[in-house]
Amino acid sequence: MPTTVLNMSRPLGHSELLQRYVQIRDFSRRLAAPLTPEDCGIQSMADASPTRWHLAHTTWFFETFVLKSSAGYRPLDARYEAMFNSYYNTVGQQFPRERRGQISRPGLTETLDYRAYVDRCMMDCFSAEAFSESQLACIELGLNHEQQHQELILTDIKHVLFGNPLFPAYGLPADENTATRCGDDVLRPLDWSSSAGGIVDIGWDRIDGFAFDNESPRHQALIPPFRIATRCVTNGEYMEFIDDSGYQRSEFWLSMGWNQVQLAGWEGPLYWIRQDGQWLQFTLAGLLPLDPAEPVCHVSYFEADAFARWAGKRLPTEFEWESEAVKSLQANPLIRGSPVRFADQILACQNTLHPQVERVGDSPTMLGNVWQWTSSQYGAYPGYQAAAGALGEYNGKFMCNQFVLRGGSCATSSSHIRAAYRNFFPPEARWQFSGLRLAW
Amino acid sequence: MPTTVLNMSRPLGHSELLQRYVQIRDFSRRLAAPLTPEDCGIQSMADASPTRWHLAHTTWFFETFVLKSSAGYRPLDARYEAMFNSYYNTVGQQFPRERRGQISRPGLTETLDYRAYVDRCMMDCFSAEAFSESQLACIELGLNHEQQHQELILTDIKHVLFGNPLFPAYGLPADENTATRCGDDVLRPLDWSSSAGGIVDIGWDRIDGFAFDNESPRHQALIPPFRIATRCVTNGEYMEFIDDSGYQRSEFWLSMGWNQVQLAGWEGPLYWIRQDGQWLQFTLAGLLPLDPAEPVCHVSYFEADAFARWAGKRLPTEFEWESEAVKSLQANPLIRGSPVRFADQILACQNTLHPQVERVGDSPTMLGNVWQWTSSQYGAYPGYQAAAGALGEYNGKFMCNQFVLRGGSCATSSSHIRAAYRNFFPPEARWQFSGLRLAW
Amino acid sequence: MPTTVLNMSRPLGHSELLQRYVQIRDFSRRLAAPLTPEDCGIQSMADASPTRWHLAHTTWFFETFVLKSSAGYRPLDARYEAMFNSYYNTVGQQFPRERRGQISRPGLTETLDYRAYVDRCMMDCFSAEAFSESQLACIELGLNHEQQHQELILTDIKHVLFGNPLFPAYGLPADENTATRCGDDVLRPLDWSSSAGGIVDIGWDRIDGFAFDNESPRHQALIPPFRIATRCVTNGEYMEFIDDSGYQRSEFWLSMGWNQVQLAGWEGPLYWIRQDGQWLQFTLAGLLPLDPAEPVCHVSYFEADAFARWAGKRLPTEFEWESEAVKSLQANPLIRGSPVRFADQILACQNTLHPQVERVGDSPTMLGNVWQWTSSQYGAYPGYQAAAGALGEYNGKFMCNQFVLRGGSCATSSSHIRAAYRNFFPPEARWQFSGLRLAW
Amino acid sequence: MPTTVLNMSRPLGHSELLQRYVQIRDFSRRLAAPLTPEDCGIQSMADASPTRWHLAHTTWFFETFVLKSSAGYRPLDARYEAMFNSYYNTVGQQFPRERRGQISRPGLTETLDYRAYVDRCMMDCFSAEAFSESQLACIELGLNHEQQHQELILTDIKHVLFGNPLFPAYGLPADENTATRCGDDVLRPLDWSSSAGGIVDIGWDRIDGFAFDNESPRHQALIPPFRIATRCVTNGEYMEFIDDSGYQRSEFWLSMGWNQVQLAGWEGPLYWIRQDGQWLQFTLAGLLPLDPAEPVCHVSYFEADAFARWAGKRLPTEFEWESEAVKSLQANPLIRGSPVRFADQILACQNTLHPQVERVGDSPTMLGNVWQWTSSQYGAYPGYQAAAGALGEYNGKFMCNQFVLRGGSCATSSSHIRAAYRNFFPPEARWQFSGLRLAW
Repeated sequence: MPTTVLNMSRPLGHSELLQRYVQIRDFSRRLAAPLTPEDCGIQSMADASPTRWHLAHTTWFFETFVLKSSAGYRPLDARYEAMFNSYYNTVGQQFPRERRGQISRPGLTETLDYRAYVDRCMMDCFSAEAFSESQLACIELGLNHEQQHQELILTDIKHVLFGNPLFPAYGLPADENTATRCGDDVLRPLDWSSSAGGIVDIGWDRIDGFAFDNESPRHQALIPPFRIATRCVTNGEYMEFIDDSGYQRSEFWLSMGWNQVQLAGWEGPLYWIRQDGQWLQFTLAGLLPLDPAEPVCHVSYFEADAFARWAGKRLPTEFEWESEAVKSLQANPLIRGSPVRFADQILACQNTLHPQVERVGDSPTMLGNVWQWTSSQYGAYPGYQAAAGALGEYNGKFMCNQFVLRGGSCATSSSHIRAAYRNFFPPEARWQFSGLRLAW
Repeated sequence: MPTTVLNMSRPLGHSELLQRYVQIRDFSRRLAAPLTPEDCGIQSMADASPTRWHLAHTTWFFETFVLKSSAGYRPLDARYEAMFNSYYNTVGQQFPRERRGQISRPGLTETLDYRAYVDRCMMDCFSAEAFSESQLACIELGLNHEQQHQELILTDIKHVLFGNPLFPAYGLPADENTATRCGDDVLRPLDWSSSAGGIVDIGWDRIDGFAFDNESPRHQALIPPFRIATRCVTNGEYMEFIDDSGYQRSEFWLSMGWNQVQLAGWEGPLYWIRQDGQWLQFTLAGLLPLDPAEPVCHVSYFEADAFARWAGKRLPTEFEWESEAVKSLQANPLIRGSPVRFADQILACQNTLHPQVERVGDSPTMLGNVWQWTSSQYGAYPGYQAAAGALGEYNGKFMCNQFVLRGGSCATSSSHIRAAYRNFFPPEARWQFSGLRLAW
Repeated sequence: MPTTVLNMSRPLGHSELLQRYVQIRDFSRRLAAPLTPEDCGIQSMADASPTRWHLAHTTWFFETFVLKSSAGYRPLDARYEAMFNSYYNTVGQQFPRERRGQISRPGLTETLDYRAYVDRCMMDCFSAEAFSESQLACIELGLNHEQQHQELILTDIKHVLFGNPLFPAYGLPADENTATRCGDDVLRPLDWSSSAGGIVDIGWDRIDGFAFDNESPRHQALIPPFRIATRCVTNGEYMEFIDDSGYQRSEFWLSMGWNQVQLAGWEGPLYWIRQDGQWLQFTLAGLLPLDPAEPVCHVSYFEADAFARWAGKRLPTEFEWESEAVKSLQANPLIRGSPVRFADQILACQNTLHPQVERVGDSPTMLGNVWQWTSSQYGAYPGYQAAAGALGEYNGKFMCNQFVLRGGSCATSSSHIRAAYRNFFPPEARWQFSGLRLAW
Repeated sequence: MPTTVLNMSRPLGHSELLQRYVQIRDFSRRLAAPLTPEDCGIQSMADASPTRWHLAHTTWFFETFVLKSSAGYRPLDARYEAMFNSYYNTVGQQFPRERRGQISRPGLTETLDYRAYVDRCMMDCFSAEAFSESQLACIELGLNHEQQHQELILTDIKHVLFGNPLFPAYGLPADENTATRCGDDVLRPLDWSSSAGGIVDIGWDRIDGFAFDNESPRHQALIPPFRIATRCVTNGEYMEFIDDSGYQRSEFWLSMGWNQVQLAGWEGPLYWIRQDGQWLQFTLAGLLPLDPAEPVCHVSYFEADAFARWAGKRLPTEFEWESEAVKSLQANPLIRGSPVRFADQILACQNTLHPQVERVGDSPTMLGNVWQWTSSQYGAYPGYQAAAGALGEYNGKFMCNQFVLRGGSCATSSSHIRAAYRNFFPPEARWQFSGLRLAW
């Protein structure tokens, strides 16, 4: 396993990784805890996966890329290799993606047993300090991989529950997980930060911690002067776009976006429901009135781009976004150390599972509330090399017909958020916690 | 509720119906018992439904057509009316059929609670002898409706389990539910029964018990002389057709059938798997070697028709089939009473959940092993009238692009089998326990 | 070539056939004459074919089934064998049906050259009286085949021209080909003819002339007493169904029909256009006001069946229809000779290319105006045997998911109309000249 | 009409434009001359259009954007406005793109009449020097628009003719339009040009002539040092990729590309046919043996990218490509004047309608042979603004899910080729004359 994949400046040792392994693996289990066995089996569309599949696939990752190279490892069930392979052609056959919700066995209990079996084997190796450097690197990748799937567990189950006419909530009691509603008076007014542009450093800084290969190599880019908003677009602002016939006027839309609007009959963001002249919003806490002060969320690139054009502005490029995010993090008095890494202590909205109002008086940060579409199509940085072997399939083979999102969301673990992080989705996708920030 | 739907000669009273109600409702629960909550939620194709949906929909039937006309009935959840409506436009909205596997709530436990709630309300009315004549008739229809769905629970879950690369068995231990394998020497040789034809009586005889509206009116039909096989086509005979390139020679096939073979890549009946040059068959007891003596099963009309043409024979019409079945039942010394009703005591294969070899020395009967495709397209008998209202949607609106099957199968309850019974499926369907009997 | 296909009682000789050959072949050319080369190339849907393809395929028929068995015949272009094979698997490869409109060569001129080439070869053989009995039989089949395609040329080009926003007319000047409009006072009032039913003879009578194999064997059928309308349903009557929300009320429709109405957004027959509150109808003479007295035309089986249910009546079976048609022909003073063959002299509407009003005082005949949907699904008569070889694919392989239409239309050549003739189309098809006649 | 769309440095006057108008309009007519009326009507796939549509739409452009704003203009047929509108939502309704091949009227003759009518009106205005500045700018845009469609006429008809089993040639005699075949000894060996990178100027230089809005604004970009091939990849080199199982090894492909290969069953470039172990290639001169020395053509982005990865190289970015192209043009002794404009005199292959072998001793130029895929996804240059109104729909609304191609092809008019020109197509498109040049 080439370490280029893992971009480790200082690889973590057994004990440090063990601690993270236990925490992160346990968090997946906790995410599934409020769900019934039936909930965990549903695949609501081809792009999403059942919770149970996420629990098994993340386990498969450690089994396939770590344990199978350990002496004496015996798989719990050899047939899981193909069943829980997502897209690694190098590993071999894959159960068809669109049929992940069509198999009932292994059930939830057996899937948790599978997790426990693999965890036990991992623990034994951790205890014996038996992992090679390369295996340790793979474990760190596997933990970051699992954190990605933890966010997908939440976005996918939200889509599942929304498809049910009963509109059930994701199991937590409302008072714990609901965003507190607040009036427009607490909303931070829209302001613009100016940047002189010039040559900036982009990508993972090799100073601290893990990054995915697509954040490398760090390189220089030339950007013109620009202005970028100090907060995201809100539901209230987005309603003005709707009320101004935004979804009926082709002049704001990319050609493919306009087709999509017609085809899918879009009239507002995903999870917005108009009832008796009022907008409601489906959330992980159930169906709630729409708060105009909250950042707009669950919009596609097409909608983000059309809104920006309607507003006489544009979306930032990912380089503009990153240079500004680094600047804002460095200016934040609460942040010590890494200039591009997101600090836990400012993660106000984390674990609310819903975007938070950006309030007057908050230290402005661009991270951790909603993913923000950029105008950048997802491609390789200059000099990018995918790793050899299966893990080379992790990021590089998706560099086509996707747009970059930046910032992390209320459903992203705080330790998984950083300024250099590049998320990517097709322009029509909107079941992620995706919003936008304007630039000009 | 017009009694024409129910075709009752002597409507059953409260006590007799109560006994049947308890038995039949309980049998649905028992059918689901070997399954996990995850099993019960899967919809493997648009034509099939999840077990949980069958459990809920059959309950909805009593709630909608019986209890809602009872004074003081309050639904457990008013939203179930649309969620579990299958196709009754007259009742109102329906949750989209192809999305039945996409909702996780109500889960299995809540669904069984829904059953218990409705059963309790039914029991109260039974105790009070509170049902009207028309309600009693609807209850008898509902029980026959539930028996139809009991067979579908089995055919649909078989399809679900087959779609899983683990090929899991439906929960019963193999020694209870597996057909005993036997050699070719016990197979009854193929023989032909001759009929002189002429004018025959077709349809429900109004002498005894329940029939669906599509079995009426009883009427006369003129049939030419014919010969019909005394047993069904076997796996071994069907393998000869395959070995003679039956699936590669267009001359045996209807045009639409030939297209289907190409499109779907059919090379043998559903559930047949060729492994290392050997045919295996997926059954409710798991993956087993194919027994050449058993009746061939899970073939489409297209395959049945092509086989018959290859064999130089044809499929019987439904009138030929029925006249012969009545004759064979009347000749059976074990049968007393109704000439067209299937007697429990000869139901050797019942509850094996797998077709039985038709053995030397068995009293030949045409019923209760595999459904048999006829050459008759499903239509109305002369003078047929669908009932007014929602229950008029039960049978009549499907009289298009379907073929009639006769005989009942190893998955049909014996009390639900009769000579006049008309089952119907599109010509490409093959997930039912469907085989064939030759004629000429 | 087995004569069973051709059902010839008295096979025609060289000279008689030659005369028909010249007439019928020339009529195809005349049908194409008003069209441009561009018109002749369009395929407006997979079910229809370009005019040029019809001209080539009917020629291919004689080349393939007659000339190729003649000594010394050399095809004009060997590649045409596959290009113009419609569906004869026994002959070999076929150019994909849905791509018939995607090839521009051979163009119209070359296609007419191909016709001339084959006609010359045929003439040579006719002159030499060189055809065998079997070839003569094939020629007669080929001429009837060409007459079928002549009707398709008209129905298919009507569909092509309708798809053009310019709504062009099929080349004839309006005063020649337009049906004369007339008031309701000339419309024959709806009346019912009663039949006592009983055992009737059905199918080709072997007395006179050609019939297709699917009209045989002549056999007896038992029909109950019935009443059948003395004229077809009119546009005016059909408008009442529309105005009574016929297309919005599911209770009148077969389940598949109701789905089709939703899916395709049907609100009236094909070619009806509502403009400024008025119904117009696209005809081969262009867009014209709808005449309420004309027979309704271009309805599907689904619509015919739904209309009948709305009217409290039903469609006749094909046996009822045929027995009544024979009776009406026999009663007609203008008809001499064959009891089941349609006489040219009563063919008032022929070559108008539009259905005619059934007027007071006309001798009632059931033939030659619009095809009439029956409630009979298309299947084999008892004892039906398809021929061996390619011509056995002519009719038998389509006996599935189609309904029988009877009577011939204003676009059918009069010499191709007879009471025993069985046309068949899927229940959703409506680009044929198809209407309905009620029964009860 | 805002002049920003047209990017005119020095707008052309009436007389200069008139001359170009006559030449370019006439060239469209000449391109259609070898085709039959039937050829001109075919649409072989939704992405392509019939020749006749191209002839009409380019005419519509002048009518809509120039003549309709001229006093007293009367359209030949007002219905053409919607019929020949391609995608301008601002103009109004559009005839459905995928149905362009389904209308036969106006036919070829009437379409040429339409062209003549509009040309006459244009001539009148030219003679009267009646066009405004803004109209003159639109005319220049319209002429460049027509040149784009002239290339599409060729690429689209090539696809049409290839779909015909007769493989007809586009009408020219072979000796005029066929590339001369030549041996490998004349092929220029693969060599690499090195660039130091740094800050380069990108985009239209405002010095000379027309450019599309998407080539503006001219701006600076920072590029790292790179090497780029001095000629394109050849058929011979591409065959090595195929022989090395390039189409069977997922590791070379983008994920979407790999899916496409499976789905479409690709085994080589479009128009390559393997016959008896030999590769043939369909060209506008018919089916010819494949010349290994010619540039590979008709590959998709997916294939270009996979080939590059197999070769251990990559595709250039569009900025690398442009900076190198400008350098090569400036170094070319034959070129005088504009640094980014392609000179007619070096256009060796022009009008051959087939890519030319890049020969030893030729002055290397990167332009005018095959379009070359770059790794750049098509997006806006910094500060890009689409024009207001309908012409703003020209380029900007397609900036999504497309990749940039550079260089112009053997089917591009020489006056339409320049270094700054940005062509764009989806990554799966391959019916354009598209090849590739390696970089690293």
